[in-house]
Amino acid sequence: MNYILNKENEIYYECGWSSDNALFLSLNGEKFVITDSRYTLDAKENAKAEVIEARDLVKKARELILKKRIKKLKIDFKNWSKEDVSKLSLAVFLQNSPDFSFKKRIIKTPKELEIIKKAVKKGARAFDEFAKVIETGIDEYELSFRFKEKLTKRGKRALSFEPIVAINENAAKPHAVVTSKKLKKGDLLLLDAGIKYKRYCSDRTRTIYIDKNITMSKKQNFPKHIQKVYDVVLKAQEKAIKSVKVGMKVSELDKIARDVIENAGYGKYFVHSLGHGVGLDIHEWPFINSRNELRLKEGMVFTIEPGIYLPGEFGIRIEDMMAIDYNGKANVL
Amino acid sequence: MNYILNKENEIYYECGWSSDNALFLSLNGEKFVITDSRYTLDAKENAKAEVIEARDLVKKARELILKKRIKKLKIDFKNWSKEDVSKLSLAVFLQNSPDFSFKKRIIKTPKELEIIKKAVKKGARAFDEFAKVIETGIDEYELSFRFKEKLTKRGKRALSFEPIVAINENAAKPHAVVTSKKLKKGDLLLLDAGIKYKRYCSDRTRTIYIDKNITMSKKQNFPKHIQKVYDVVLKAQEKAIKSVKVGMKVSELDKIARDVIENAGYGKYFVHSLGHGVGLDIHEWPFINSRNELRLKEGMVFTIEPGIYLPGEFGIRIEDMMAIDYNGKANVL
Repeated sequence: MNYILNKENEIYYECGWSSDNALFLSLNGEKFVITDSRYTLDAKENAKAEVIEARDLVKKARELILKKRIKKLKIDFKNWSKEDVSKLSLAVFLQNSPDFSFKKRIIKTPKELEIIKKAVKKGARAFDEFAKVIETGIDEYELSFRFKEKLTKRGKRALSFEPIVAINENAAKPHAVVTSKKLKKGDLLLLDAGIKYKRYCSDRTRTIYIDKNITMSKKQNFPKHIQKVYDVVLKAQEKAIKSVKVGMKVSELDKIARDVIENAGYGKYFVHSLGHGVGLDIHEWPFINSRNELRLKEGMVFTIEPGIYLPGEFGIRIEDMMAIDYNGKANVL
Repeated sequence: MNYILNKENEIYYECGWSSDNALFLSLNGEKFVITDSRYTLDAKENAKAEVIEARDLVKKARELILKKRIKKLKIDFKNWSKEDVSKLSLAVFLQNSPDFSFKKRIIKTPKELEIIKKAVKKGARAFDEFAKVIETGIDEYELSFRFKEKLTKRGKRALSFEPIVAINENAAKPHAVVTSKKLKKGDLLLLDAGIKYKRYCSDRTRTIYIDKNITMSKKQNFPKHIQKVYDVVLKAQEKAIKSVKVGMKVSELDKIARDVIENAGYGKYFVHSLGHGVGLDIHEWPFINSRNELRLKEGMVFTIEPGIYLPGEFGIRIEDMMAIDYNGKANVL
């Protein structure tokens, strides 16, 4: 099987190295990385592939394909520009292979599971450290800045994505961006963030109550009208977590959490899917939603993150990552 | 003329609004924005275009194109995936228009020039504020973190790009990434960074000497062997800045700076082009290099950033932004 990749994480997965300007090809079992002169030294030291330097990467790929007399090449048309595809197709028959790399990466190796476990631990620790520097009177911008300071260890570590930091009604927005809204005692604060460890992502959400004692625990003491909703989300998450097992369809898993929320009367306020795979990419296979018939297997890693969003009032989401180990045991990371 | 766009800055330029999941179409003089339900409210309030909500944006675009009986649509194949182009081409003849939006945006309006001028001022002020918190004994990570703290005003403002912070031989790397290298007295420090103001970018580079008095001025007092090289770069920059005038080819401008460096014997260490346009994108038209025959015009905004990079030793780059106003006068911003 011959294939070509252009995304950083996909390339890294194949050869342990990548840059923001590189292509990877697997041709007749041989591996090649094409990159420009800024990166060739680094690539030669670290890539488990033959490194080829070029200014025009696609042109060089075409030459290589012709030289190796390749007749058919797998490629994911979602990831490639029309322009690049046109250029490549002059040299070879391109076979569109949707989600080619996602499919390869859905089952994590034991080594990947170890790394992801550590990433999650480090991410969780940053939540706890952030808890100590949350103060009333500061706004979402400043909260976010302090959160990122802890998550990145003052810039020494990458984020999985731009964190969500949202107070009260801002937490109800499906796409919350940071504002100058200030934190007060008695507020609700939704925090969704992750870090990268050895290039693998962590992802976690906590919704917490701002009181004397601020805790990132899932046990929170909100005022009654909020706690009622919080408990529904927590119950949905716990039930889904307990249900995870090898062989079940991910759509069934989504339904287990969704039923809890629907039965409590909040169905229409759970506006997104239950979860997503996590690995080198923050969103990857398996996508856990009501339409996906894929079955859970050993080595899969994914989030469980039900939520209820009451527009203009508040939003609640609780998210943890889970992994299924090679004994078929599902664990919260 | 009918056209379709999918990049955030390109869409913002057309209708004063954009999101990370939106398409823009101009059809028979009517403007349309297609986006998903997370963004429709915001779009309706802010976009100067008819807003259409959809889950599958490309599918909705196709329906709209058919409804409006469009026969030919301009599109930039570099910016669109093969998959999306295939779907759109079921509805209309697609005419590849390379750099369609870059070409539109190369001449800035007086209002854009005003905004960019302010962005540059704010960016320069952040350099000066950073100067006050540079300390010996801290590493590039910590320097970068403090720099970003000033550039973003603790997260209240966006960066134009991830800043470059490089000490001594790290400054000689064409693609410097932040390391744990610590700053000492007598070091050289290269700083390349910009901020966004009303979505427009600033861009500036200073190479400074770490002494008792740290200054972001272009007047620096390096040890003799470095100062010699610094003065060549400064001379190249000053000569290029003075030469800028309406009607000249950008390749000529590149040559003026390159000749200064070549005549001083450092030609092969000036490994990149002289500059690039700046606007909503940090890199846009005009690209100022030896191969571009484009001519300078009123309303253009670009950087002048010659450099000399001595591998294993040190690197020098000095960068400022310039604008040509509507009287044809070229100004350093």
